[in-house]
This record gives sequence, C-alpha cells and structure tokens, in this order.
Amino acid sequence: MADSNYHRPDSKKLQSLKDIAEKLRVHSIESTSAAGSGHPTTCMSAAEVMSVLFFHTMKYKVDAPKDPANDRFIMSKGHAAPILYAAWAEAGLFPVENLKNLRKIDSDLEGHPTPRLSFVDVATGSLGQGLSVAAGMAYTGKYLDKADYRTYCLLGDGESAEGSVWEAMAFASYYKLDNLVAIFDVNRLGQSQPTSLQHDMETYRLRCEAFGFNTYVVDGHSVEDLAKALHDASTVKDKPSCILAKTYKGRGAKGVEDLEGWHGKALGDKAQGALDEINGRIVNKGPHNIKIQAPSGEVKAKDLSKVKLSEPPNYKKGDKIATRVAYGTAIKKLGVNTDVIAVDAETKNSTHAQKFRDAYPDRFIECFIAEQNMAGVAMGCACRDRAVVFASAFACFLSRAFDQIRMGAISQTNVNFCGSHCGVSIGEDGPSQMALEDLALFRSVQGSTVFYPSDAVSMERAVEIAACTKGICFIRSSRPGTTVIYDNDETFAAGKAKVVFRHEGAKATVIGAGITLSSAIEAHDLLAKEGIHINVIDPFTLKPIDKDTIIEAAKASGGKIITVEDHYPEGGIGEAVSSAVAGETGITVKMLAVRELPRSGPPNVLLDMFGISANKVIEAVKSL
Amino acid sequence: MADSNYHRPDSKKLQSLKDIAEKLRVHSIESTSAAGSGHPTTCMSAAEVMSVLFFHTMKYKVDAPKDPANDRFIMSKGHAAPILYAAWAEAGLFPVENLKNLRKIDSDLEGHPTPRLSFVDVATGSLGQGLSVAAGMAYTGKYLDKADYRTYCLLGDGESAEGSVWEAMAFASYYKLDNLVAIFDVNRLGQSQPTSLQHDMETYRLRCEAFGFNTYVVDGHSVEDLAKALHDASTVKDKPSCILAKTYKGRGAKGVEDLEGWHGKALGDKAQGALDEINGRIVNKGPHNIKIQAPSGEVKAKDLSKVKLSEPPNYKKGDKIATRVAYGTAIKKLGVNTDVIAVDAETKNSTHAQKFRDAYPDRFIECFIAEQNMAGVAMGCACRDRAVVFASAFACFLSRAFDQIRMGAISQTNVNFCGSHCGVSIGEDGPSQMALEDLALFRSVQGSTVFYPSDAVSMERAVEIAACTKGICFIRSSRPGTTVIYDNDETFAAGKAKVVFRHEGAKATVIGAGITLSSAIEAHDLLAKEGIHINVIDPFTLKPIDKDTIIEAAKASGGKIITVEDHYPEGGIGEAVSSAVAGETGITVKMLAVRELPRSGPPNVLLDMFGISANKVIEAVKSL
Repeated sequence: MADSNYHRPDSKKLQSLKDIAEKLRVHSIESTSAAGSGHPTTCMSAAEVMSVLFFHTMKYKVDAPKDPANDRFIMSKGHAAPILYAAWAEAGLFPVENLKNLRKIDSDLEGHPTPRLSFVDVATGSLGQGLSVAAGMAYTGKYLDKADYRTYCLLGDGESAEGSVWEAMAFASYYKLDNLVAIFDVNRLGQSQPTSLQHDMETYRLRCEAFGFNTYVVDGHSVEDLAKALHDASTVKDKPSCILAKTYKGRGAKGVEDLEGWHGKALGDKAQGALDEINGRIVNKGPHNIKIQAPSGEVKAKDLSKVKLSEPPNYKKGDKIATRVAYGTAIKKLGVNTDVIAVDAETKNSTHAQKFRDAYPDRFIECFIAEQNMAGVAMGCACRDRAVVFASAFACFLSRAFDQIRMGAISQTNVNFCGSHCGVSIGEDGPSQMALEDLALFRSVQGSTVFYPSDAVSMERAVEIAACTKGICFIRSSRPGTTVIYDNDETFAAGKAKVVFRHEGAKATVIGAGITLSSAIEAHDLLAKEGIHINVIDPFTLKPIDKDTIIEAAKASGGKIITVEDHYPEGGIGEAVSSAVAGETGITVKMLAVRELPRSGPPNVLLDMFGISANKVIEAVKSL
Repeated sequence: MADSNYHRPDSKKLQSLKDIAEKLRVHSIESTSAAGSGHPTTCMSAAEVMSVLFFHTMKYKVDAPKDPANDRFIMSKGHAAPILYAAWAEAGLFPVENLKNLRKIDSDLEGHPTPRLSFVDVATGSLGQGLSVAAGMAYTGKYLDKADYRTYCLLGDGESAEGSVWEAMAFASYYKLDNLVAIFDVNRLGQSQPTSLQHDMETYRLRCEAFGFNTYVVDGHSVEDLAKALHDASTVKDKPSCILAKTYKGRGAKGVEDLEGWHGKALGDKAQGALDEINGRIVNKGPHNIKIQAPSGEVKAKDLSKVKLSEPPNYKKGDKIATRVAYGTAIKKLGVNTDVIAVDAETKNSTHAQKFRDAYPDRFIECFIAEQNMAGVAMGCACRDRAVVFASAFACFLSRAFDQIRMGAISQTNVNFCGSHCGVSIGEDGPSQMALEDLALFRSVQGSTVFYPSDAVSMERAVEIAACTKGICFIRSSRPGTTVIYDNDETFAAGKAKVVFRHEGAKATVIGAGITLSSAIEAHDLLAKEGIHINVIDPFTLKPIDKDTIIEAAKASGGKIITVEDHYPEGGIGEAVSSAVAGETGITVKMLAVRELPRSGPPNVLLDMFGISANKVIEAVKSL
C-alpha cells in the first residue's frame, strides 16, 4: 500500500533518527547496568522503532504527556521499560541523568511501566495485554471522541503467543480501527529459548493479514523503512495496520546481538564494550535537534465525577426482580450521561447490558466471546478519563480476564465489572456456568470495591456508586428474582451495611447477600413463628466491609454470627466477615457455603442440597 | 489433500449416517423440551458432524468409553451436551430413554458435560478451552504413549473468538500433531447476535492455515463431505487438520433454522412441528445397523499412585536455598518415574523447570507464553491417568489460566501447578511480576490443595505429596533464598503444620510461610533477646489448614495470633487462619499483609515498606 504523496525524510533527519536510536540503546544499557538488573537486549532490538515513533511519527505535547489530543503509545512488551523511559527523557520530559535511577526504591522509573509515571496510561509487564488496551483507545478515538489522535502499540514477538493478542487483532479489524498501528518487534529470542516462529516473517504476515490487518514486513533496524511504513499505515482506511519489524535482540553489541542467554540481565562485563561500539556509531553526539510535532487539534478534558441515575429506582416492595435485570435498567439510566459506555462479551441478553445497547447503540461495544480483550478494551476506553465504563459477562467467565484485571489495579483503572449468574442458584446449566470463586478473585484485587446487592433498589444504587468510585469495582448480580426489600428512596454507600432485622436478645446474626439474603430473611420469618429471633444483615459491599455494624449486631446476639453465601467457602462472605471480626474476642462465625462440586438441577433444590437454603440457616441457628 | 485410496462409504452407509444425524436432532429437541431448557439449535447444526464422527470415523469401545486405546473426542462447545449424550445413547452405551432425564437433579446428564459421565474426559461449557485439552491428548498420544489413537475436538464458531483457541492452534502446529482434528461448527449465530465472521468461510480458512493447520472447508450438513474430509485428514503427516463445517443453527426445523433468537432455549411450541419435519426425513426409523469400529491396538492402563522422589532431600540446615530451585530439583527427582512430565510457559529458567527439561527432554513440553493453553494441555496430558503433570510459570501469570483451572476442578483433573515469584520479595521487577492474589485464587478452587513450603526440604516433599494427591494442587515458590530449617528426614503431610518454635507462656503465635516465615523466625530470635517469646508456625499447606495445631498454639499464647504474608490481605494466610479459628472464642488474629500497591525496589526494603518484615512482626507482637 504505497502512497505516492510520501515524502522521504531528508538525510539529515534520517541520521538524527539513527543517532537517537543509538542513544536510546546507550541509555538502556547504562540504566540497567546502574540497576544491576533489567532487560537491555529487549530494548536494543526496538531502538529504531522507538526513535522513529517518538521523534518522527507521533504527534504529542512533550510537556503534557496525557493531553487527550496526543497520539497514544502502549509499550505492551513492558520489560522494555528502560527504552520507553529513555525516549521520554530524550524527548525532553525529564533529565537524561534521571535514567540512572531505574528500579530504585525512590524512583518511579520502575522495572516495568506503571501510571505512577505521567507518560504511562496503563501498567504493562504481563505480556499480551497492551494491544487490547490500545484497541480500546483507538475505538474511543474513532467512535467516541471522533478525534484524529492515533494509537501505537509495540509488542514483542514472544508475547504474540498469548491468545489475547489475537482477540485484540480480531476486534480491531472487526471495528475497522484504521487509527491503530501494532508494531511487532520480531527479535527471534524469548526468555529461555528462541520463539516458536523465530524469524519466520512470512507466517507472521499470513496470521496478521488473516486477522484483517494491513501488514508491512520491514527491516526493523532501518529508520527509513520504518518511517515509510508508519506513514503508509496512516493513509489506509477502514483497516488497522501492523508493522512486522524484523530485528535482533541485543542489536548493535558484538557478543550479545542475536545470542541466547542475554534475556533479562544487565550486560555486566560486556557493557563497556557495547557502549564503546554503539557510541562509536553516533554521528552527532550532542543533543538532537528534532522538534516533536504537536497534535493539530484539541480534545477536551472530561469531568466524569457527576454521573448519576437519571431517575431514582422505581420498584414495588415485595416484587421479585432479578438484580441482573436491575443492572440493565441502572446502566441505561446512567447512560443519559454521554460519557458512560458499556461493553459485553456476547452475553448481553443474559447480563441485561442489552438494555443499554438498545438505548445507546453508539456507546455499546460488543466484544464477542473474548473476555480478556473485553477487559483490555474497557481499560483503554477509560484511560485519560475519556469514559465511565461498565463491562459485563457471566461472573465465572470474567475470571478469564483476571490477569488483565490484576494489571488494571496496577494501572489505576476505574473500570466497573458486573458479573452475572453467580452461584448454584443459576440452576440447570450446571457448574461450568456457576461463579463460585468470583468474590475471592475480586476481593483480592488491590484497591477494589466489591458490591453484592440483594435487591433491585440496591443494585441500581450500587451501579451509580460504582460509576464514580476510583479503582476497580465489581458488582455481582444474580439470575433468579429476589424480593425488593428497600424503599426507592433508601440511601446506600460503599462500606455501609443494612440491618434488615434487629432484635433485642437475638439468638444469632445472619449475614447473607443476593439469593442467600433471601434465605436469611425466610429463615428469620420461619424462626420467628417458633419464637426464635435472629438479626439479619445485608453487607451491600464485601470490600470495604462494614466492620462496625457487623460487630455491633454480633455483640447484641451473644457473639454468634452465621454467614450464608452462594460461593465456595474461601474468600467470600464468610472469610470477609471472619477477618473483619478477627480482632474481637467473644465472636464466633459459622460459615454456610457451597462445599462440594455442584451440579445441574432446579435452583431451590440446589440451594438446599449445597447447604445455603433457608432450611439450612434454620438448622444452623438451632444448632448454636 | 485428496487421497486416491479413499473409498466412499456406500449409499446404504451414507443413508444410515443421515438417519442417525436426524435421530440425534430428534433426541436433542426432545430432551431439551423435557428439561424445559438447554440448547437444541446448537445441537442441530452439529448433527451430521456427530453422526459421521461417532458412527463412521472414530474407533472406540462403546462399552469402555475411557479405554486408553480409544480415539478421543472433546465437545468444546459444551452447551451442545444433549447431542453428545444422544450420540453415546445411539452408540449403545445407555438406553435412549435416559436422555429424557437431561438436566434433572438425579441424572448425570447435566446441562454441560462433566466427567461424572463415563464418556467425558473433561468438563466443558466455558468456551474456547477444549482444543487445548485435545492438543494435550494428541501430544500424549503421539510423543508419550506413541499410540495410534486420534483426537477430535468439536468447536463452535462463536468460541473461536477466544484467544485460547489460537494458542492451541499455534501449539498443535508447532508440535506437528497430525493425530489431532479440530472441527469448527460454523453455524453463524451466537448467543445474542450473529458471530463476527458469520459465514465468511474464507477468512476462517486463512486464519486456520496461517496457524499451521491442514484445512478443509466443507458443507457441514453433508455426511459424505464430512466423511471424506475426516478420512483425508487421517492421511496428512506432520500437520494437525481442521475441518471448517458450514452449518445452520437449528438446521432442519422451519421457523427456527438460521434465525436469531433461538439460542439456549427449548423449542417450546415449535418443538412438535420440528420433530414431525425431522422424523419425516428418517428413512430407517428402527435401530441403526452400524457397527462401531474398535481400536486396533492396545494401550496399557497406568498406575500413577507410586510416584516418589528418587532420593530424599539433601540440604544443610542453615543454608539459603530458594524454594523455586528446590522445585526444579524435586521434579527432576520425580522424573525417574517415566510417567511424570513437566510443562512450562517460557519461564523454565526462572521456575527451574529447566532442570527437568535438561534431564528428561522427551517429557518436557514448552508451551511458550500462553498460560491458558498450557493449563489445557496439562489437563489433556493428565486425562485417563496417562501422566502425572507439573505445570509451572510465574504465579501471577498462572492467574491468566484461572478459568481453565476452575474448569479443571469440575473436570476432576489431578494437574499440579507451581507458581514462582510470589509477592513483593521478588524486588526490582515491580508489581506486574508479583503474585499477591494467587493464594486467594487457588484456595477458591474446589477440592484444591494449596502448598506454601518455606524451605528446600519441605518444597521437595510438597512436590512429592502433590504428585499423588487427587484434585488440583498449587505449590507456591519463592524467588529469594530462604534458610533450610528442616532435617532431610523430616516428614510432611497435607494439612499438618510444623511448630517451629513453642514456648510456655508465649506472647503470641506467629504464622508465616515462605519469606514471611523467615520474618517470623528472625522476629522470634530478636524478641528472645529481649525476653519476649513467641510461637512460630509453618502451615505447610493453607488448604487444608491445620486447624487443631493452630488453635492449640494460639490457646497457649493467650489467644493471640499474628499472621504475616507476602500477599494481599484477602484470601491468603490471614483469612485462611481467621476462618480456621472463627468457631472459637478467645482467639484474635492480627493480619500483616501487603496493603498497598507495591513498587520496584530491593526485596528487604519492600518487605519492610509493605509491613511484612521481621521488624513489623516485632512491632505487632509488642503492640499486643
């Protein structure tokens, strides 16, 4: 796809780009040598790519790295962090001398990039994740911002073994993201051996083309070839582009280049020779004279802090409504704010994200059955505060994206996840579709907020609170209907439990959520007929958990707590409560949870068979 | 790739296969109608594929579905369970009448297949996982068993959006698995809308060929075309094969076929018309007269219950050895048993699985950077007790495979996972490489055993115990060296903690593991100099946890427990201990854990900064 309007950079510019590439190599070697660890050879293969991108192709404001009008860059091969830092230093964002602080405890120039740095949008270092984020950014640029910034993503060849890369490729071509360029640094060598395809550029080309990318195979050490391919990519319509850069790991240093055994270590006694060799190739040893292009247009910053439900919940107490249905209603109500978007992984008629899609088709992104990519796209859309994002799927399948979600926490993302179809209460579909570990997973995510609303009113408020809560939010929704128990004007807050029933001299305090709050309430009513009273608490959020309310209620019921949850015993309600009261003496917790591998069957039969029905709560109370 | 030796089935056989396909449709409709739920239309598109596979191509003993000599079949599109059940019923394994028990509480004919059924090797129903398992089986057949059984995997088109499918494709072609056939049922329609590629068979073909598969595009409703393609596939050497079957969802029923809105529901008032229409096409309405081919060879069953270390641990107390190093030594020692294999995701020089590879290259499988596929391959290798499998990677990256691992529990797999590089103690590489959620994840897996050995001796024994433990085992290994504290002849058992220090009138009982057991021991020694005594416990396994030993030690130290862990507070040591003592009054647990997002830095600085060093233990003891 040659472009006849292409103007080759003049020879002076080309020499400058070559010089900068060599300087980036020097910085990568020096900084990793100062640190005594790191990945210099992974940087060295990418030096020309980084030079051309940062000093020729990309348009950005050096002093405002996160300006929304800037072109975006994602370093998916995060272990090449030193050359990313070097590029920004050479661009002028901070003094080159600071690079020597790489990996030090008091420096944000960490071993892998994190958004502690002003120029990093998402943390990378778990491989194969960057392209999904970049695709989310490109989707946002093309369809939501309708702006002309472009998104570049640098991947390693080794990481192309990750299936998530191909999920992102399929997504990008399906949505015709012609503002996205994936650059593969095909340096042939992995961590412990050569990659599976080594330098088989033809197979890479066939794969990328089959996944719908306009593809160039180039000499990745030729600044001229890279500049031309990146230019040509910018002229292609309705297709994302891919540049397959054939490179050599450790390029430019004899005794290191293209050799095994040099992954992830400083060059040690080879460093000085390598530096001499590389410095010897630099023509202009002084500061470069390249002026980085600023973006031509403006893209306005957004204030995402005011997203609210368009109208309050409108339910009738006593009606049975599934919380997954209320989720759909809630995100639709939030959608009156045009900064709200929803994504789903081909489950929208089950999660009820469909309701949002029907109301705001332009702000709904169907990600098909590819949860990892969905999570990455969601994070990409949320970057630089461009959108409030709700991502939904069956809760058990969100576990597919756990590594992305873990990295999302390091990335300081604000994406909200809703997982439907939790627990044995889904019934006949059987254990493969039942989320019984999701609370453990999402509670373990750093800085997360975990909502487990029990009725339609509290679900709507959970969604509203999540929209403006920093960090990753998880909302667990249920398949079967649960009774509306709150007034439409009831107020909710993260970390504030609701005391559903409170009795002087209660025999126990029972804590459940979702379908098991129903079990607790039913047990309460049946026990009351026998003159036995229990307190019932709805925690609303499991993280943070309302320790004070729980301890107070427990003390008022002889120190006896019973938890009941549609989840395995580890990491869910029982352990959240146990750890909340662990500092107290005189309180015991008895945990009802799913303790065996469940099976297909009617929901109510399963609740009883696996020990979390009202009957089982009654038995537990009586056994105290 | 036509084969001139191909003999077309005669017209009588072809008609029988057509009749069986229609009967399978009938069973799928009738059983889901009886259940009132399920996925009949997903079955109907696959009817001819199933008929040809089960009644023409595959060689197996009907009355011994798991005979190791049989051809294997994986129903990756697990929601098509009813037609799988119907095929085995028609083959004669159980009465056709039983199909009406689909999805009932007292039937093992669940909504999605599980190994509760004699003819199911692994549970399916989370999409995109089957081909990895099939690839593991095919690898085992070709390279380990060196037998001539073949492996067939039926996938949906929707699930091909999962990246794990492409990980498996790349793996199968890299290892030249010519005994593997992937059949894609391209029926155009997903759950809530058409798939991204619909009937674009050419793009599917390009993708499959680019990923190294010998590929056929066929009319998926022609038994003749399917029989020929399956035959031709069997003649191809050194390449896996792929059959892209163009089909129609709901095939054969007017008002349903190829229409949206019919995913995942019984046909309701359309059922009778559909049955009449389909039954009308059956020529021979009586029992079929096809004799299923038995496998020609024999493959011996294995006894995997006797796997032991070839020699006991051989360390010197007081030496510092990283448990990840001891892991490598241990699996190498186990490797004298030729049924032991190891797999890794291109981290073998970090996890130390390299040691096994160097000793037994024929029993080591490099899976490259594709953890999901690695987990699936591991399960495939372990099926039918063909191998004891150890799978390793950085613990944080194993989280990538959590959905596979969750499904592995439903599959009753015995795969052992070792996750290295846990916690902040890895140091400079930073948070993306630190596993701080892995204990929460693996503890939540149904039926799992979670080992967290603290020195080299206990690591070797953990590996040995894991080898013969049913269910999924997880072994957490550490990057830095920890002091050898056990004698080489010390004995260990899952669920049995070690009391490292025990003092009458101790001020507290401190529980740590790995690097934080070192923190506890150091704190013990420093506090002793001040005349303050603490008990120290090494739990060895966190699941099962040794409740009795913990409670006994706690009671002997005034009820005070302190836990210290290189993990986030949720789901790890602190919560395992809190829930173990939750039924007791008079015991409190104070939890030291990583409570903020960590960063790059020297391990010892990070341990202190994030609150889990010996100093922090001492502070916690003194604050009691």
